[in-house]
Amino acid sequence: MNTTLELNINNGIANIKEPLNLVSGKTLDSYQLKYETYGSLNKKRDNAVLICHALSGNHHVAGIYKGETKPGWWDNMIGPNKPIDTNNLFVVCLNNLGGCHGSTGPVSTNPSTNKPYGAEFPIVTVNDWVASQKQLMEYLNIPYWQFVVGGSLGGMQSFQWSLQYPSLIKNSIIIAAATKLTAQNIAFNEVARQAIMKDPNWHNGNYLEKGVNPDQGLALARMLGHITYLSDDSMKEKFGRDLQESKLKFNFDVEFQIESYLRYQGEKFVTGFDANTYLLMTKCLDYFDPIKDLGETLNNRLKDSKCRFLVLSFTSDWRFPPNRSREIVKILLNNNKNVSYAKIKSNGGHDAFLMENKDYFDTMRCFIKGSRHDKS
Amino acid sequence: MNTTLELNINNGIANIKEPLNLVSGKTLDSYQLKYETYGSLNKKRDNAVLICHALSGNHHVAGIYKGETKPGWWDNMIGPNKPIDTNNLFVVCLNNLGGCHGSTGPVSTNPSTNKPYGAEFPIVTVNDWVASQKQLMEYLNIPYWQFVVGGSLGGMQSFQWSLQYPSLIKNSIIIAAATKLTAQNIAFNEVARQAIMKDPNWHNGNYLEKGVNPDQGLALARMLGHITYLSDDSMKEKFGRDLQESKLKFNFDVEFQIESYLRYQGEKFVTGFDANTYLLMTKCLDYFDPIKDLGETLNNRLKDSKCRFLVLSFTSDWRFPPNRSREIVKILLNNNKNVSYAKIKSNGGHDAFLMENKDYFDTMRCFIKGSRHDKS
Repeated sequence: MNTTLELNINNGIANIKEPLNLVSGKTLDSYQLKYETYGSLNKKRDNAVLICHALSGNHHVAGIYKGETKPGWWDNMIGPNKPIDTNNLFVVCLNNLGGCHGSTGPVSTNPSTNKPYGAEFPIVTVNDWVASQKQLMEYLNIPYWQFVVGGSLGGMQSFQWSLQYPSLIKNSIIIAAATKLTAQNIAFNEVARQAIMKDPNWHNGNYLEKGVNPDQGLALARMLGHITYLSDDSMKEKFGRDLQESKLKFNFDVEFQIESYLRYQGEKFVTGFDANTYLLMTKCLDYFDPIKDLGETLNNRLKDSKCRFLVLSFTSDWRFPPNRSREIVKILLNNNKNVSYAKIKSNGGHDAFLMENKDYFDTMRCFIKGSRHDKS
Repeated sequence: MNTTLELNINNGIANIKEPLNLVSGKTLDSYQLKYETYGSLNKKRDNAVLICHALSGNHHVAGIYKGETKPGWWDNMIGPNKPIDTNNLFVVCLNNLGGCHGSTGPVSTNPSTNKPYGAEFPIVTVNDWVASQKQLMEYLNIPYWQFVVGGSLGGMQSFQWSLQYPSLIKNSIIIAAATKLTAQNIAFNEVARQAIMKDPNWHNGNYLEKGVNPDQGLALARMLGHITYLSDDSMKEKFGRDLQESKLKFNFDVEFQIESYLRYQGEKFVTGFDANTYLLMTKCLDYFDPIKDLGETLNNRLKDSKCRFLVLSFTSDWRFPPNRSREIVKILLNNNKNVSYAKIKSNGGHDAFLMENKDYFDTMRCFIKGSRHDKS
């Protein structure tokens, strides 16, 4: 066993020539998926792990690029001797279709117009993502995923994998997710979308052609999103009512540190993210409702599935609270599936899924070690 | 006793010539307060009730204007035989200073420039409001308030009355409020403010001079606010994931009913509200922190106070949840005050304070009937 502590990042672009028939009715004739891999596919080709990213994620999930200091977005989870241990697992993460980090999406050139897709990029769904991820799996010559893992919107993809391709997934890890969005969840997404679409630089989504970006709207959307990722308690601990300066100014500049933090988060985000992609990601969340979509078929698919499930929630997550995770558990138990569930104590809010936490990481290690892969 | 079931609305404008020294350090040399009254001040002048409005409220709290159909914003609570019974109470409600419904505020003409105040209107605080309300009390020849009543930001004013003028208030009713905003509360306010101040029609707050309004920003602010007024459960009951049309369209038009509802709420709001006033109201909320402001003085003031308190919270309110109300109760109990507290079961969220509810209304009636006023 290779026990190196350095993580080698391999990356590539999969050019998929197979047309993708989208849930919306539209078709993408071809597309590319940007991905990274870590660790090695073993001879039995039974140690592949797919990591699915959430709303603002990308393919760079672990390791540090040469010359940079900031690691991938889930570097605490993935690497040598980490819960998703690259000493014996082959980890794949991709930028999802519609993303803005190298996979085909609104910032890509539309081959039929030679201009950026912009608003012309079709709306994709979690089902479409999973279908495209299957193409990537085949491209990488992986027969099936030993694990599909994700938090939030990433957890929805992991759940969807178990329903859409039950024979191609052995273990599904679904973290801080839900079977569908509530009206309140959709409402927050809608305010974020309206913020972007009311920005004067929006130009009906074709802002790239005009050489501008709806940065103010996107920053607002991110600020709002950020509030829903943190718990009330963690905000209290981190900022409370602490002032930015020594005393109140009684004007509309920053008074409290939380205001400064949010403005910074918004401004930072727009430098690396595309507004059309943000809109698409929120729609993916809104549309996700596999139980309604599949109806009776859901039970049939689950009956045939041999997939083991780990469902995790965090006590202070108010975006997808523990009761939403238990809805997933209930559906799985009703179908006699092999399910482990843990509610992890954390005050990290929804973002807790990205944070190091002994109970959380121990549970991950334990479940991963207990898979047939490790037993074999 | 007059037992008429019709509510007569009297209204007027109090021109206050006494300068108001604001907490910010600025001074308003004179100002006007628009108010309404219902019922009659009795001979002993001991039956006056002040109703304090919340963020988007105004002086029209009860009754129906001739030719209109929509009653005041708390008409279920105030009127003949209602919990705040105008058969024996004299009810006063004003538009707060800085408002946009007839009291001096950003839309008023600044006497020193003959232009609308706009961004020049000074930031006011809850303390300033209470000081101006005392001026109105004197203007109306009322020696003290038998009750000061309010929900949300209105409840903060009621609490502040008991601290600022302890000898001029007999009973304070504090509903769905808190002693101060949390970082999360401030964060939501800040996103709302940024939405307004990033609107291209904002013009640094002097949009009226330009003949425009930052309607899109204000609508966004209202949409966001609205999410925080409703509970997750009530949104689920009212909208769930119901579609606007019979099937999904996979575009950025309204898909779910909740989106349509929010857009409508935003659009409706901007026809009757001023953006600068909205900003001011959110700042009033942010700055409110009487326990910090008064420090040791708080206890002294409470010691001298003979005020009875009723503190009410609602189970599904996540803007100011019951534990925030209990903080108020704790402070009062620590000072041996006469406090009644009830947590009312309701799925109405923060807005529950505006909704009819038997337990809530019975508690209000009971507390009001038990006051020295009725005993005398």
